[in-house]
Amino acid sequence: MADIPARTELKVTTGPIRGSRKIHVGDLKVAMREIDLEPSANEPAVRVYDTSGPYTDPNAKIDIMAGLPELRRDWIRGRDDVEEVDQREVRPEDNGQLGPDRSGGVPAFPQVRGRVLRAKPGMNVSQMHYARKGIITPEMEYVAIRENMGRAALKEKLARDGQDFGAEIPDFVTPEFVREEVARGRAIIPNNINHPESEPMAIGRNFLVKINANIGNSAVASDVANEVDKMVWSIRWGADTVMDLSTGRNIHDTREWIMRNSPVPIGTVPIYQALEKVGGIAEDLTWEIFRDTLIEQAEQGVDYFTIHAGVRLPYIPLTAKRVTGIVSRGGSIMAKWCLAHHKESFLYERFEEICEIMKAYDVAFSLGDGLRPGSIADANDEAQFAELATLGELTQIAWKHDVQVMIEGPGHVPMHKIKQNMEKQLEACGEAPFYTLGPLTTDIAPGYDHITSAIGAAMIGWFGTAMLCYVTPKEHLGLPDRNDVKVGVVTYKLAAHAADLAKGHPGAKVRDDALSRARFEFRWRDQFNLSLDPDTAEEYHDQTLPAEGAKTAHFCSMCGPKFCSMKITQEVRDFAAKQNASADTFLAAQPVSEAEAEEGMHKMSETFREKGGEIYLPAE
Amino acid sequence: MADIPARTELKVTTGPIRGSRKIHVGDLKVAMREIDLEPSANEPAVRVYDTSGPYTDPNAKIDIMAGLPELRRDWIRGRDDVEEVDQREVRPEDNGQLGPDRSGGVPAFPQVRGRVLRAKPGMNVSQMHYARKGIITPEMEYVAIRENMGRAALKEKLARDGQDFGAEIPDFVTPEFVREEVARGRAIIPNNINHPESEPMAIGRNFLVKINANIGNSAVASDVANEVDKMVWSIRWGADTVMDLSTGRNIHDTREWIMRNSPVPIGTVPIYQALEKVGGIAEDLTWEIFRDTLIEQAEQGVDYFTIHAGVRLPYIPLTAKRVTGIVSRGGSIMAKWCLAHHKESFLYERFEEICEIMKAYDVAFSLGDGLRPGSIADANDEAQFAELATLGELTQIAWKHDVQVMIEGPGHVPMHKIKQNMEKQLEACGEAPFYTLGPLTTDIAPGYDHITSAIGAAMIGWFGTAMLCYVTPKEHLGLPDRNDVKVGVVTYKLAAHAADLAKGHPGAKVRDDALSRARFEFRWRDQFNLSLDPDTAEEYHDQTLPAEGAKTAHFCSMCGPKFCSMKITQEVRDFAAKQNASADTFLAAQPVSEAEAEEGMHKMSETFREKGGEIYLPAE
Repeated sequence: MADIPARTELKVTTGPIRGSRKIHVGDLKVAMREIDLEPSANEPAVRVYDTSGPYTDPNAKIDIMAGLPELRRDWIRGRDDVEEVDQREVRPEDNGQLGPDRSGGVPAFPQVRGRVLRAKPGMNVSQMHYARKGIITPEMEYVAIRENMGRAALKEKLARDGQDFGAEIPDFVTPEFVREEVARGRAIIPNNINHPESEPMAIGRNFLVKINANIGNSAVASDVANEVDKMVWSIRWGADTVMDLSTGRNIHDTREWIMRNSPVPIGTVPIYQALEKVGGIAEDLTWEIFRDTLIEQAEQGVDYFTIHAGVRLPYIPLTAKRVTGIVSRGGSIMAKWCLAHHKESFLYERFEEICEIMKAYDVAFSLGDGLRPGSIADANDEAQFAELATLGELTQIAWKHDVQVMIEGPGHVPMHKIKQNMEKQLEACGEAPFYTLGPLTTDIAPGYDHITSAIGAAMIGWFGTAMLCYVTPKEHLGLPDRNDVKVGVVTYKLAAHAADLAKGHPGAKVRDDALSRARFEFRWRDQFNLSLDPDTAEEYHDQTLPAEGAKTAHFCSMCGPKFCSMKITQEVRDFAAKQNASADTFLAAQPVSEAEAEEGMHKMSETFREKGGEIYLPAE
Repeated sequence: MADIPARTELKVTTGPIRGSRKIHVGDLKVAMREIDLEPSANEPAVRVYDTSGPYTDPNAKIDIMAGLPELRRDWIRGRDDVEEVDQREVRPEDNGQLGPDRSGGVPAFPQVRGRVLRAKPGMNVSQMHYARKGIITPEMEYVAIRENMGRAALKEKLARDGQDFGAEIPDFVTPEFVREEVARGRAIIPNNINHPESEPMAIGRNFLVKINANIGNSAVASDVANEVDKMVWSIRWGADTVMDLSTGRNIHDTREWIMRNSPVPIGTVPIYQALEKVGGIAEDLTWEIFRDTLIEQAEQGVDYFTIHAGVRLPYIPLTAKRVTGIVSRGGSIMAKWCLAHHKESFLYERFEEICEIMKAYDVAFSLGDGLRPGSIADANDEAQFAELATLGELTQIAWKHDVQVMIEGPGHVPMHKIKQNMEKQLEACGEAPFYTLGPLTTDIAPGYDHITSAIGAAMIGWFGTAMLCYVTPKEHLGLPDRNDVKVGVVTYKLAAHAADLAKGHPGAKVRDDALSRARFEFRWRDQFNLSLDPDTAEEYHDQTLPAEGAKTAHFCSMCGPKFCSMKITQEVRDFAAKQNASADTFLAAQPVSEAEAEEGMHKMSETFREKGGEIYLPAE
């Protein structure tokens, strides 16, 4: 038997995010963070959305070998619509033909569950199903509290300012609002009944823009300890969901380690594992093998499946003249299958059967864009939009079954073609949440594609995309390491936030304004703590001015003491206050005679010199 | 006397950019680069815009102590409108009260010129003046060839595709087009007659979007060797102009080292040096000191001056209630002066006198936005737009003198407020080129502000901004080091290029498409060489698959051999070609009887298996 890794080999990063305090709000104990500001700020703590789970809670006991506590256990079982069944036994093909001893592979997760949950016969356990029956679930309540953060406390400050392109963002998120959005398919709450460890979250145009991070073994690199660590690391920096895109051997076991330790929804692309089961020969894929894989993964607790059911046989030739053909892995596997058999895709033909599985576990669809453009040259072409129309059709079928759906989108799109993607998606897919990869706005910057794509991501997020799939600096070049994952997550977090601001999401500005005030008042600690990545902010600051003293100094390294514009402005402001020379009175004082004006000016000049004189007032 | 640095201390990076060949086109020897592709590509070399000057030319002899050759010497003197005059003597206050021996400071540049150029009395040597007289200068010809790159050769491929928001981008740039754009003030060619080392370039909405990199000593850090190195380093990666924002001591001498070694236009903010001359006391600034500083810098060859002449006394109180007040250093210096004296700004009142200086050397205005917002909370406010209206007024005055003008813009602006900035600027300033800093689209990501701002920069570049001032990862935190400069430049280069693509700039797509084809065909070398930063692309690739063999392998580390979608697509394409099953014929074949269809499908399936069968064809 492969050795179970020693606890020390399964290291993940724990402990509070610098400057943040974990809090749990309300009866449901909704996890958030609060950032306390320096006393001189005289401001309340800033509450921020938090995806990091128990790992950043100093009171939580973390044991990767045991997995996380089951937050939703009683909610799920309390609905009386699930039954315990024996888990499908793990087979050699699930892990690349490894035997039960896993020799040569990664070890099995030590806590074998044996029994898993499934909807009772005839029952549907999807959040959409409850929503449509008018039931507000604890998951919906959790989401409502989570999305509001401190919005209630700040109510009076929440002047709306934004352009939302027809979204319907409420001033305040109520559980009923969440229910309505889920019922009409505009939002999903991906949480498989076999993933009770997850903290509920919503993906939808009228909620905060979310981001996804991809992790996973490949045939040429990676191992299980690495992947668990990357999952914990990516949620620490803000990933709202994580996709396990493992290929190669050990797929089942790697996923089990990730599932049992993940407080965020986990997505997969089941066709990857199905292909492994047939030795990598796309032609040998069958519906039965795929179906079995769906059940295997649904029982493990996967929260959403990317399924490329829109790659239909007649669309494949539309890609023949593209510059980069089909770049989606799942899409190209299915294209190969379709051509080899010259048959319509079994994913398309068996779609209703797939829905039956989804609703028995509450797995959400992430309808894959197998024909997305892989270069700006191929953006918005016939193949892409033909598939999108089909995804719209499939959305209606899924909704008929009360199965939750989001729609995947591109990819590589120059800026002037981004908006059309959002508009067509909204129209074709009845406002089902859009989930895009970037898009990358140019192809000439490998090594910087987190940035080429953050530009497109921020824009499409503003236009209405509900979740942005991150891109790391290694995109197109290699497998992301730990640091790449962090850079990718923080980059997407800032893009999503820029979108929230532009949409006019109530309360989104609270953090920006708090940080700007801290900047203006030279509260360096507060600036670091309020930023998306306090560690990097402080490290960069310290490279130029490492002394602890500098963090309270009234100047910084960019300008030095003489040139500090913030400092000078503070003096201007102090002076204006003393003089009551507010904008209004000052301007009102303008239309007087020239002589009066000159005298007034002279007087004000004298006063300024008397009161101020020296440029550098001592720090208060 | 301060020691003249040994040559070894003045190291700058020289040698070709990886994978590029320096070329010089036409009689004017316009510098460009060409990237040769692998023979298997069967494609012509890709010609790219090049800002790196002689430093990347293996045939150039680089000697930092001597400066660059004077490319424009004969053009400038050949116009018979300049005279040689004695250079204003360097005074102690020019270098922070250092004596002529510079003891304690940086050494003087060894090649003292002594004599400098100035327009003959009554003459105007600005490119705008020539343009308006109908003269096409060699500078304009140089720009035309430079902007076209290989456009002529590619003519037939240049299908226009973009949204240009009313720009008038020609299919082909002629010298006459350049003249017209300069004449009407829609473009500037910043090149001081005392900076003959510079390679002419244009900044204007109908040309490629340009980027600026800031360098400079501050009172708390940096030295001259560092700054020269940063200048050379930033143009290597694509900076079109460089601003020397030095403060503290040694300003004059640092600038001389930079000027004499810079092949790109250099901009400064003269008020910084003027303030040093009065010991840092803003109230003590006078028109005479400022005027003297302008002449000092114009004689050195500075190509554009940021002048905050729009910070008028009545606008200052408009900033009193801002979250971050005045964040422009120049703006706050002038605000302080105005308040201290309660007088209108001398920059505003003496503007025509400034124009007289500008036209005697062809220094362009960069009209500073001293009241730009320093936080998204302050974006698009009354203070900002009041100043913009004044900049529009001043533009008209400058144009009356045939002085070239560009307009500086923000700053910190959430996405939904960016477009208004461009629209107001075009209207207020008669289409004078806009030159923006970012804008940053959120304030919560210090350490990543190159990215928060690249989002805004790409967008505003698309809307019509002519030049983007870079932001480095250290923005708001500290002074950028060499690596930060590179990251900032490459980030802005990709943002500017994304804007060119979205505007539909002819030929912009050529490089993207060449790279995408290389990606599709697994030509790794070509992918690296065509990218903005070939070194990083290759380094990232090698971290996962370091073997040289991997660079020609038909798979890469992301998917491994089995999962490669590019590989599978190639097979699909090969098959389609063999079958003549192009999109058209395939789709046309659809409307047949069901029996016919089934038979046809079966036949196609058999053929596919016969011809292909195995997924992995050997690499060709």
